[in-house]
Amino acid sequence: MSLVMDINVEAQAKEAKRAAKMVSLLTTEQKNAVLKEIANTLEGNVDYILKANEQDLAKGREKGYTEAYMDRLALSPERIADFANGLREVAELEDPVGDILSDWTLDNGLQVEKVRVPLGVIGMIYEARPNVTVDATGLALKSGNAIVLKGGSSAIHSNQAIVDIMHKALETTLIPKEAVQFISSTDRKATEQLFTMKEHIDVLIPRGGASLIKAVVENATVPVLETGVGNCHLYVDKAADLEKALSIIVNAKTDRPAVCNAAETLIVHEKWLDKNKEELIELFKDHNIPVHGDEEAVREIPGAIPAGEEDWTNEYLSLDIAVKVVKSIDEAIDHIDDYGTKHSEAIITEDKEAASRFMKLVDAAAVYHNASTRFTDGGALGFGAEIGISTQKLHARGPMGLPALTTVKYQMTGDGQIR
Amino acid sequence: MSLVMDINVEAQAKEAKRAAKMVSLLTTEQKNAVLKEIANTLEGNVDYILKANEQDLAKGREKGYTEAYMDRLALSPERIADFANGLREVAELEDPVGDILSDWTLDNGLQVEKVRVPLGVIGMIYEARPNVTVDATGLALKSGNAIVLKGGSSAIHSNQAIVDIMHKALETTLIPKEAVQFISSTDRKATEQLFTMKEHIDVLIPRGGASLIKAVVENATVPVLETGVGNCHLYVDKAADLEKALSIIVNAKTDRPAVCNAAETLIVHEKWLDKNKEELIELFKDHNIPVHGDEEAVREIPGAIPAGEEDWTNEYLSLDIAVKVVKSIDEAIDHIDDYGTKHSEAIITEDKEAASRFMKLVDAAAVYHNASTRFTDGGALGFGAEIGISTQKLHARGPMGLPALTTVKYQMTGDGQIR
Repeated sequence: MSLVMDINVEAQAKEAKRAAKMVSLLTTEQKNAVLKEIANTLEGNVDYILKANEQDLAKGREKGYTEAYMDRLALSPERIADFANGLREVAELEDPVGDILSDWTLDNGLQVEKVRVPLGVIGMIYEARPNVTVDATGLALKSGNAIVLKGGSSAIHSNQAIVDIMHKALETTLIPKEAVQFISSTDRKATEQLFTMKEHIDVLIPRGGASLIKAVVENATVPVLETGVGNCHLYVDKAADLEKALSIIVNAKTDRPAVCNAAETLIVHEKWLDKNKEELIELFKDHNIPVHGDEEAVREIPGAIPAGEEDWTNEYLSLDIAVKVVKSIDEAIDHIDDYGTKHSEAIITEDKEAASRFMKLVDAAAVYHNASTRFTDGGALGFGAEIGISTQKLHARGPMGLPALTTVKYQMTGDGQIR
Repeated sequence: MSLVMDINVEAQAKEAKRAAKMVSLLTTEQKNAVLKEIANTLEGNVDYILKANEQDLAKGREKGYTEAYMDRLALSPERIADFANGLREVAELEDPVGDILSDWTLDNGLQVEKVRVPLGVIGMIYEARPNVTVDATGLALKSGNAIVLKGGSSAIHSNQAIVDIMHKALETTLIPKEAVQFISSTDRKATEQLFTMKEHIDVLIPRGGASLIKAVVENATVPVLETGVGNCHLYVDKAADLEKALSIIVNAKTDRPAVCNAAETLIVHEKWLDKNKEELIELFKDHNIPVHGDEEAVREIPGAIPAGEEDWTNEYLSLDIAVKVVKSIDEAIDHIDDYGTKHSEAIITEDKEAASRFMKLVDAAAVYHNASTRFTDGGALGFGAEIGISTQKLHARGPMGLPALTTVKYQMTGDGQIR
C-alpha cells in the first residue's frame, strides 16, 4: 500500500481493458456483493484513509486553500460512512446490463436482439473531492465496466488511500483489482495520455471546473461525456404569478449557489418588473443578493451595478445574480441561445402558450415551467446516484445514471442466414 | 443558380442554426409534405442536374478516375428517380420527434417528461457519391434538423445542382432554404472550419474512407458520429456446420465486397480446417478469392500468400480474404480484439456455449451466430433509410436511422415547485 512511483498509464489502461471483460460477465448479484464488500472494507479502514487525508489537508493549509476548498477536501468517519452507504445505495439500483431494448425476427428467421452492454473502460478525470473516487467506482462496476481514475493533485493521498482500501476489498471478490486503476502521477502529461488512448478507454468523463472540462473536450480523441457547467436562467414572463416567481427566484439562486443547477441570470419582462419592482427589490435585499444588471435593471434596482459580458457568460457560483430586462419572450429566448450552457432553463408564467413556446425553442437538457431549476439532479428525479449531469446532446443528456455508462449491441442468432 | 464564390462557412452554419428552430416546430405531416415537394422538384429538373453531373464526369475522365469511381459519380434519370423515391420512403418512416420516452410525477407534483427532440444542425462531410446529398437532407429534415452539406470535390457540380433544385423546392414550403446549406468551396479549410463550430453545429457525420473519418474524429471538437469502417471477421469454430460455414463465407465475402459489412478475415479453428480443407479450398477457387494466410493457412491452402500486419488491419474492399488458423475460440476473440473495428463479427458453430461466449466477449456493434455479417444494415434490419452505420459506442451503435438524429429533453411542468 504505497504510492507507485513508476507510472505507465498505458499499461494501466490495458490492464483495465482486460479486467473489464471479466466484470462484464458478472451477474447483478455478484456485482452487488462486490460493492457491499468495498463498502464494509472502507468502513473498516477509516484510520488509514484519514491519515492520508491529513497529508492532503496539511499541504492544503500550506498552500492557503480557501475554507470552502478545504471543506471539500476534508474527510471524517462520517463522510467515509457516507461513501460506504452510497455504494450500498448503488447496489440497490436496477442493473441496466442485459436489458433487451427491442427484439424482432426477420422474415428469413434471423433473430435480432438489441441488448444493453457495458461501455468497457471509463476514464474519470476529476478535481478535488475524494468522494468521486468511490462514487464513480461504484457506478462503473455496477454497470459492468472497469474504471481508470485520475483525481486532482490536492487530494492525491486521500484518493490513493481510498483506492488502496478498495483494492484490498477486491482481493476477496470476483472483480480483479485491475478493474480499478488509479493514476498516481500528478503530472499533467499522465492526464493527457488518457486523452488519446482510444484502444483501451471507451469514454472519458471530466468532473470539475469549466477549464478542466474544456481541456478534455478540446484535446481528447477518446469520446467524452461532457458534464457540468450550468449557466442557468430564470425567465419571469409578463404573465408570471408574483408568489411563484419570488419563491422560485429565491430557491434557484440561494438554496445552493455553488451547484450547476443554480440560477445565475434572471431575465424579466419589463411589464412584470414595472408592476412588481418593489417586491423584487425587497427579495434581493432580504437575501443579500448582489445584482449585476443591464441598463434598465440598473436604473430600476437600487444598488445594482452594471453587468458586463462576463456577467452574462459565467457562472457566479455565489449569491450574485445578473438581471436582464426584456420586451418579449423571444428576446429572452435569444439571450439564452447566446449565453446558456444547455443545462437548465425556466420560464415562470401563467400563459400556457408562452410556456410551450419557451419549452420548445429553448435548447437545454431540462426546461421548466413554473418550477425551480434545482430539480435537474439524479437524486431529485429518482435516478439514484449520478455520474454527472450531461450538457451535451449525444448519448446522454441531463442527469446521467447507470444507463449512461452502457452502450448497446445487436445480437443476431441464425441458422445459416445469408443475404 | 450559380456557384457561390464568396464562402463564409460560419455565416452558413449560423443561418442553419436559425433555420433549425423553424424546422423543429413543424408537424410530421408538414415535414413529409416538404420531402415530397423536394422529390417532385428533383424529378422535374433532371436535365439541370445531369448537365452539372456531366461537368464532374468530364473532370473525372480527365483525372483518370477508376471505372468503379466514375460509376459512383455518374447520375442518370433513373438514379435521380431513385433519389426522389428515397425521399418518399423517408416520408413514410415514423417520426421520432415528440416521442415521450418516459414520464412521471414527483411527490411534490412536478411533472417530468423525457421527450425526443431534434439535434439541431447536422454537419455532413462526405465523399464522392451525390446520393448522400439527397439522402442525408431527407433524413435530417424528417427528424426536425437543419443540415450543412460538405461533399467531395469530385462531385461538386452535381451536388451544387442537386442543392439548387432542393432550394427551389423549399421556396414553396414551410422549411426555409437556409435549413439546407451547401459548402461550395473545395478548399480543405472550409471543411476544417466545420470541425470546431460548436456553437452552430450539433454533430458532424463523416461518410467516406477511413482517412476522412480519422481526420474528422481526430480534429473535430464538435461531437462526431463515427461511421463506417468495417474490418469484419468470420470465425469458423471447431463445431461449425460445413454447409452453413461455406454459404456464410461466400455471402459475407463475395456478395458486395466493397461495403463495410462484408467479411475481410476468416478465422478458422484448426480442427475444423483439418476436416474440411478440401471444401474450403474449392470454395476459394470457385469464387476467385485470393487468400492471404498466416503460416498455417499458407501451408494448408494452395496459392495462399503470406499475410502481413496490413492484411489483418485493413479492409480489402475486394474479393481478397485473410485467413488465420487458431487453436481455440479465445485465440479468435483475441485476434478480433486486436484488429476488429467494432462493426460486425460472426461465429459459425453448433456449440451454443461457444456462441454465447463469442457474442458476450466480442466487442462490436453487431455479433452474429450462424449468419452472414451482411445484415448490419438499416434496410436489412427494417429501420428504413440509414444515415450511416455507427462503429462507436456512445449515442448510437450499428445502423443509424432517424432516432440517431435526435436527442432528448426533460420538460418539467410545475405550479411553483421549489427544492
